[in-house]
Amino acid sequence: MQFVLVAGTTETAAIDGISAAGATPELVVHTPSADAEIVVYGRPVFAPVTPVSPTGCPTPAVMTRAVRELLGFDVTVLDAGLARPTAAPTVDVGAESGADIRTVDPVPDASDVFASARRFGHALGADELVIGETIPGGTTTALGVLTALGESVATVSSSLPENPLSFKREVVADALAASDLDAGDVTEPMRAVRRVGDPVLAAASGLTTGAIEADTRVVLAGGTQMLAVAALARRAGVDAPLSIATTSFVASDDTANIHDMAAAFDVDLTVTDPGFDASDHVAMERYTRGEAKEGVGMGGALALADRAGVSMVDVRDRIVTVYERLFDEPA
Amino acid sequence: MQFVLVAGTTETAAIDGISAAGATPELVVHTPSADAEIVVYGRPVFAPVTPVSPTGCPTPAVMTRAVRELLGFDVTVLDAGLARPTAAPTVDVGAESGADIRTVDPVPDASDVFASARRFGHALGADELVIGETIPGGTTTALGVLTALGESVATVSSSLPENPLSFKREVVADALAASDLDAGDVTEPMRAVRRVGDPVLAAASGLTTGAIEADTRVVLAGGTQMLAVAALARRAGVDAPLSIATTSFVASDDTANIHDMAAAFDVDLTVTDPGFDASDHVAMERYTRGEAKEGVGMGGALALADRAGVSMVDVRDRIVTVYERLFDEPA
Repeated sequence: MQFVLVAGTTETAAIDGISAAGATPELVVHTPSADAEIVVYGRPVFAPVTPVSPTGCPTPAVMTRAVRELLGFDVTVLDAGLARPTAAPTVDVGAESGADIRTVDPVPDASDVFASARRFGHALGADELVIGETIPGGTTTALGVLTALGESVATVSSSLPENPLSFKREVVADALAASDLDAGDVTEPMRAVRRVGDPVLAAASGLTTGAIEADTRVVLAGGTQMLAVAALARRAGVDAPLSIATTSFVASDDTANIHDMAAAFDVDLTVTDPGFDASDHVAMERYTRGEAKEGVGMGGALALADRAGVSMVDVRDRIVTVYERLFDEPA
Repeated sequence: MQFVLVAGTTETAAIDGISAAGATPELVVHTPSADAEIVVYGRPVFAPVTPVSPTGCPTPAVMTRAVRELLGFDVTVLDAGLARPTAAPTVDVGAESGADIRTVDPVPDASDVFASARRFGHALGADELVIGETIPGGTTTALGVLTALGESVATVSSSLPENPLSFKREVVADALAASDLDAGDVTEPMRAVRRVGDPVLAAASGLTTGAIEADTRVVLAGGTQMLAVAALARRAGVDAPLSIATTSFVASDDTANIHDMAAAFDVDLTVTDPGFDASDHVAMERYTRGEAKEGVGMGGALALADRAGVSMVDVRDRIVTVYERLFDEPA
């Protein structure tokens, strides 16, 4: 099994009210670089902070790191448009940070990024590839791509307890208008990403496509963004089985019917409940109120723990250990 | 413990007779990229071949990977001037491949690379850092730096059974002449690297210096190249304890008195014998005849195995497993 974290940024995330992936709007741009460092090293190295939401909900990188400490799997970070330095080693697919999707050409290098990531996924020749993502504002760009492709089931989840879905739809409508497109106008997947998507979608769908071509089993570790990746891979010609591993927090989000979407794209769905209800630790209790929900491969990491026979009690204990290392030490 | 592999290239390696780090001279430039992939993934991914010497002696990346599979430690690859793509994730310190040291300014970015690597080593804040290297022709550039600095004990080992030391000295003499320098003319460490060294020496000594400043224990995993790194770190002001972990093959090389050199730079020396005499496997028997000897952190990996109580019997068994995976599978 090879775990790949696809990490990138866009200016779309800077739209007020779109992303909760940072304590303040100014910190959001650091989040993917910090997430990569937390998964790889267990703490931020170059990044100035451990990412939290404005209410203090910690990044799901904490959960993925905790599982990684229990299972010991390797992780490879793919730079899909990081905007800030990271001390995590990265594979370069030539991606730049995405612009605001309300501009005309926010991801001009989408096809090249897809091609590079596809080559990497193919060459890797893994038996199984688990693909996670970290990109603030990623559910909005995922909605953009699904809408451009005319996927009628398209809804997306949110890292906020109250999903600002109608606002996201407005942003996507503006984005389509900026590119002189209507919903459903686009059939070519990288054209959708180029016009209304983000570089992580390009890289993750390329990686998926290349891996499938090498007979690798692909597990998309995440929520509705990973359903957009599956939709893109299907449009790129992938007809092999695909699966998504996500958290119970995404699965129980009524604003995003992940079950119907998984069925629409012929994707197997694995849902893992980490049992955070059993804990009142600050690292977990905000998740039970619907914050964060998923990200940084959290659902895939939980599924790996479950498959390895590691109990969620042990996962929760390790989450506390990782959290305390991150937040109790002097900066 | 954090294991960092510093990987780079120079045109110096292309001088006929300098490097045995490739089956043919044309393949040498791929070796560091391939070594990084072998340590990270267990096999070449983008690299066209598994590196072997002209006689078929396999790269010490095989040994380091074998120990890594037994112990499960993480590895971070630092790109110190790779000239070919690698699928291994890398940390970027802004290094370019080095030119031939017989030109006037072969490593113009030495000071910047040192500074970037120092920042990384400091920020990492590890309890212990084990630093390995992979750079063909690296003993010649190490000899260049030691000679420029006027280290009278300077001799270097070789990946060849017959060390072409007088030829290396000729190349270094030409290199000094090209920069209008005499032996011992240089006191500033990065000036020596810039004029007659290689980017791996800049990065590894910067990494060492930054790590020591963060109170990290540093183990230089390698032979005479790592003694040059220690000499550079000493000249950069490091007076904390430093240690080198190398193989018995380097330690028993009479052409390079590593014991005297370690004493001269106040470096503790750990020598580990992997007991290859007990095996007649092709992966190991050429090492017993004095080929390769060290590299890719092999001596450090063996020391880690020893410290963890893993027997050299188990290490040798795993070397056979890794070797057969690399050479018996269809390409």
